[in-house]
Amino acid sequence: MAGGIGSRFWPMSRTNFPKQFIDVLGVGSTLIQQTYERFLAICPKENILVVTSEQYKQLVLDQLPEISEKQVLCEPSRRNTAPCIAYASYKIAAENENANVIVAPSDHLVLKQNEFTDIINTALSQIENSDTLCTLSIKPTRPDTGYGYIQFTDLDNVTDERVKRVKTFTEKPDLELAKQFLNSGDFYWNSGIFIWNNKTILKEFEQHLPEINDLFKDGIGIYNTSAEADFIKSTYQDCKNISIDYGIMEKAKSVITVLSDFGWSDLGSWGSLYTHIEHDKNHNAVAGKQIKLYETENSIINISDDRLAVIQGLKEYIVVDTEDVLLICKKKDEQKIKQFVADLKSAKADKFV
Amino acid sequence: MAGGIGSRFWPMSRTNFPKQFIDVLGVGSTLIQQTYERFLAICPKENILVVTSEQYKQLVLDQLPEISEKQVLCEPSRRNTAPCIAYASYKIAAENENANVIVAPSDHLVLKQNEFTDIINTALSQIENSDTLCTLSIKPTRPDTGYGYIQFTDLDNVTDERVKRVKTFTEKPDLELAKQFLNSGDFYWNSGIFIWNNKTILKEFEQHLPEINDLFKDGIGIYNTSAEADFIKSTYQDCKNISIDYGIMEKAKSVITVLSDFGWSDLGSWGSLYTHIEHDKNHNAVAGKQIKLYETENSIINISDDRLAVIQGLKEYIVVDTEDVLLICKKKDEQKIKQFVADLKSAKADKFV
Repeated sequence: MAGGIGSRFWPMSRTNFPKQFIDVLGVGSTLIQQTYERFLAICPKENILVVTSEQYKQLVLDQLPEISEKQVLCEPSRRNTAPCIAYASYKIAAENENANVIVAPSDHLVLKQNEFTDIINTALSQIENSDTLCTLSIKPTRPDTGYGYIQFTDLDNVTDERVKRVKTFTEKPDLELAKQFLNSGDFYWNSGIFIWNNKTILKEFEQHLPEINDLFKDGIGIYNTSAEADFIKSTYQDCKNISIDYGIMEKAKSVITVLSDFGWSDLGSWGSLYTHIEHDKNHNAVAGKQIKLYETENSIINISDDRLAVIQGLKEYIVVDTEDVLLICKKKDEQKIKQFVADLKSAKADKFV
Repeated sequence: MAGGIGSRFWPMSRTNFPKQFIDVLGVGSTLIQQTYERFLAICPKENILVVTSEQYKQLVLDQLPEISEKQVLCEPSRRNTAPCIAYASYKIAAENENANVIVAPSDHLVLKQNEFTDIINTALSQIENSDTLCTLSIKPTRPDTGYGYIQFTDLDNVTDERVKRVKTFTEKPDLELAKQFLNSGDFYWNSGIFIWNNKTILKEFEQHLPEINDLFKDGIGIYNTSAEADFIKSTYQDCKNISIDYGIMEKAKSVITVLSDFGWSDLGSWGSLYTHIEHDKNHNAVAGKQIKLYETENSIINISDDRLAVIQGLKEYIVVDTEDVLLICKKKDEQKIKQFVADLKSAKADKFV
């Protein structure tokens, strides 16, 4: 899934060049390239499909030169994750009815590749001959209020202790509740990475999201033909906006999770990036080639390589200076960035968003 | 005088495009254009000479299209104000031995034009038939430690109460002393604007700066000929670096001052600019076309018109974002900007200075 616009990462992430296409960690490859590499250890490259916006099709092809155009599924408009997954599921079914499927965002960080591969294989072994859905859950390290939480319980007849039954999903709790979740030990973060057999998810769509299912079912015989693009264009117009979590995962009867700890971050904000990049002796996370800091501490500084910055006297701030935009924001107020972006849109400053 | 580089105004003022050539107040004309206009009320445009660096010659001609090339005196290197004034004085003498001369920086602000003209005419009437030097002094409004102070006393046989005898010059006092100066009422700021007869200043050069005087005296017969540029090139190489204040004003026997109050600022720093431009309701002085401020107060924000800035949570800061440089600095620490610029030079980042 590579269709998001990453507005919490503005102004580095921009509507016409979002986060998944950026080397946000400064490691020499973009997030979608890292995600692609990660899955090459799991399946042949021909089996990797990228669902994105029409707008990003060329970016995907440029950044992943090994995949072919037909592996890039273009959404005519943003309808959240459920329609995106329905589209991909029907397209996969046209090629292989029995496919096992892994659904993953293209803009997450995974530090421990081997652990990730092992967890995915564990999940695949659980779902391949069953009608259960699987979501990967992440051992929480802080009472983050920006994530969904999964409460789990033991599953019968399973030897691998990491495999659990999902008891409840809780979206973005308040801080008090998040602290309770963390202390209880029964709650993990919902990673947004799903594993299931394609027949299973199509049955779940039929049961829990019949309107969406009917729309995409009408395309049987059209997927993987020259008529697909036109069909998808009209289908998306009629399609409601809903997430797979809310539309299916929270309602499905049999959902399992694999408790994971593979060095994960959704890199969902500047603060989460801060914890994953190197700091200088004053605890600043600095990216850019020409930066002079004076009396500046615990800050995130990201400056275009061709620009120079002299920064004095900042503590606990985010400073991002791109080709055309400057953002200065207190680190503790970073959740406001989404609002700043919305305000810019209201002010018709779209070219900077 | 238009040869300075305005490093305290970095990064708006740059070595290759300094403050005097910038519309720092956002009023539609640059400081040198405002200075030129100011003197058109006092003398014909043909009588206005601009002393600047070779480097800025074209900038001067572009910004003052009414003056001719021969009115622009180019210094091959920076030697402070005494050599600059010696050069201009000898050049003026070659044309008119009895000229009265006004020497003024090109990058100062004067809000009350009529008052300024009146003060200049008062000064001219005092020096035209006398061997006295005159400097304009400014009623101080705060115990500024960045200015020179003039202690004055009454002058005999003068009816205009604004005309005083200069008793002492004190360069940049510490804060305690500056406060005493302010409270005493006997001290005004030294504006750096001088009025004298050309014969008088040449005599003073002869007496107090004989080495400099000898160098420029050698050019008699060469000024205003095609040989002038080459002569000046070699003369400046041998010329020491010294200010007119230190070299002559502090040593001359007869120096008067006219107490002035014409809405003056040397615009010597971001802080002094702040007091002269409009503030929003949160006391921010904002320049730029695309700026969104949130919880930001008492700050100076200057953003290139083609860039967008979103700034949250700053109090008492200076933020300047130009085509290629970002500066963030606490307002109270603005005197450090000069050091930042020096550090950049040491780091060979000259293209940003």
